[in-house]
Amino acid sequence: MGKANKILLPILSSWLDLDGDDSDVVMSSRVRIARNLEAVKFPIAGEDELLPERVKGILDADYMLMKMSDLSLLERALLVEKHLISPYLMNKSKFGAVLINEAENSSVMINEEDHLRIQCMEPGLRLFDALERAMYIESEIENEVPFAFNPELGFLTSCVTNVGTGLRASVMVHLPGLVLTKRFNKMAEAIRSVGFVVRGIYGEGSNSLGHIFQISNQVTLGKTEEEIVMDLTQMMEQVIMQERVCRTHLKQKFHITLEDRVFRSFGLLKHARILTMLESLNAISDLHLGMELGVFEHITRQKINELILFSKPAFLRRAAGQDMLELEEKVIRASVIRDILQDV
Amino acid sequence: MGKANKILLPILSSWLDLDGDDSDVVMSSRVRIARNLEAVKFPIAGEDELLPERVKGILDADYMLMKMSDLSLLERALLVEKHLISPYLMNKSKFGAVLINEAENSSVMINEEDHLRIQCMEPGLRLFDALERAMYIESEIENEVPFAFNPELGFLTSCVTNVGTGLRASVMVHLPGLVLTKRFNKMAEAIRSVGFVVRGIYGEGSNSLGHIFQISNQVTLGKTEEEIVMDLTQMMEQVIMQERVCRTHLKQKFHITLEDRVFRSFGLLKHARILTMLESLNAISDLHLGMELGVFEHITRQKINELILFSKPAFLRRAAGQDMLELEEKVIRASVIRDILQDV
Repeated sequence: MGKANKILLPILSSWLDLDGDDSDVVMSSRVRIARNLEAVKFPIAGEDELLPERVKGILDADYMLMKMSDLSLLERALLVEKHLISPYLMNKSKFGAVLINEAENSSVMINEEDHLRIQCMEPGLRLFDALERAMYIESEIENEVPFAFNPELGFLTSCVTNVGTGLRASVMVHLPGLVLTKRFNKMAEAIRSVGFVVRGIYGEGSNSLGHIFQISNQVTLGKTEEEIVMDLTQMMEQVIMQERVCRTHLKQKFHITLEDRVFRSFGLLKHARILTMLESLNAISDLHLGMELGVFEHITRQKINELILFSKPAFLRRAAGQDMLELEEKVIRASVIRDILQDV
Repeated sequence: MGKANKILLPILSSWLDLDGDDSDVVMSSRVRIARNLEAVKFPIAGEDELLPERVKGILDADYMLMKMSDLSLLERALLVEKHLISPYLMNKSKFGAVLINEAENSSVMINEEDHLRIQCMEPGLRLFDALERAMYIESEIENEVPFAFNPELGFLTSCVTNVGTGLRASVMVHLPGLVLTKRFNKMAEAIRSVGFVVRGIYGEGSNSLGHIFQISNQVTLGKTEEEIVMDLTQMMEQVIMQERVCRTHLKQKFHITLEDRVFRSFGLLKHARILTMLESLNAISDLHLGMELGVFEHITRQKINELILFSKPAFLRRAAGQDMLELEEKVIRASVIRDILQDV
């Protein structure tokens, strides 16, 4: 695997195991800042070959530089599944690169759609912490590399939707309560009506695999970074409250049905010999809900994260150490998941 | 429970745990002989009040007499689920009675559709053994009680389909191989074309719950008892061979799919909190198949029989010690099944 060994070896990003605020609903928070070099063509028109090494020289020593052209397709796919790079960067192998810190909670994509995309992640609902870290990285780089900036518009970006702050704040949330009580669609409508975007992580609408959704800001212009993060945080507090109300309702009114659902899913993960990604992510969502509601107490949040990651194709390929046919993939998924649940 | 305690206490009939011939396919063999008293109205027109005590006096001391009028509805239902009495006798409580031996493999129903219905059961394919025991009991009774007999027709019975030998020979078979490879319907057609009856034990056709079927003779007239039993036995040897061919095919060509099916069913039985009879019998059938094919080796035939019996409503009611609502029944079924599988 060459240079990537150090980053790719830890299976789970260590920050994922930490407990964040409101972790029962919010799996993680992410802030991403897009910036472009002044007086240099934007990557969408031309990449900057020297930029990766230049930025590496600016950042702390614990950032490791990985050039897309040095990584195998599998290695790049693993970084996507860990949310450390975007699918866009993965397929852009000329001068595309990423800097990732040891904790794997900060990364700087270079020559993606914009010259720089600084990204910080936190467990739970901690958008302000993520923003603070991202702004710090941004200011460090800005000291050495002037950014394209327009006094009226703000920071300039390749895609017009990012112009202004260049900020995208997002949370990854687990909303089984809203989905199972059929209140998700109404909630999604309300979220959209105040200018945020909701989308399924592995599918659209309430059919999203594993009841996991990403909620992010749409507007990057006309608000400060702090206002964007504050608005999303406040809106999320409403979502979290509603999700908890639905879960309590499920637990109180449908306790045995809920328990049945959770334990059937456990039985499936624990014993099946063939598992599709759809089946496993939905079953993991049930375990996750069961864990949060105290219906299924034998599992940790870390195991849940591990189960989710190993349900995905690249992690599975890595575990198998080989490419797989479709049936093999399902068989290996079932086998890896049984291993993870061995003592559960 | 009064008089019935002794018979009703052993949960499983002890003979069920014995290995019979071809037990991988044939769960049990049964022979039933219908007889009526000479010069007495047949029960369908009038029951014989004194007959129960009279027959008890003839049989061995280990036969216990149980009058339907002395038994609760639950106790009668348990006897039906153990196949010791017919549903017809269960609901006929005036002078209906049954004599059952300690091993629970012989019973004599009295004042059922006929005055006497002698019934002997054996594990596996052992119709001749069952016939021999039934004929012995019949001869013992005949020494004391003359039977209605017509030199041209043979023994007379309430229902014309039983006239002649009054014999019904039947086997209970587990045919998952034929069903799963979609060859059951053709086989059932072939069985019917040579004068036998095939019916699902808990449903009709290939939708029979748990892939369990009863195959029996239709003709009781114009053949000797031995001929009937010989014909059914020979036909069964064909069915057994075909079922084994299908199972081997499943194991060789679809091994991982078969294993997945068996272990998913195990996971369901082991972890579900709500189980319908349909779900549990179908899942037990998969475990049963897995056991016979060496795919699932952690279970015994005795456990399989226990699981089947406790999936049924009366056994469940007995385990619960109370009457149940529909949801409660499914919850208690799941709980009892988990208990049975505790160490599996």
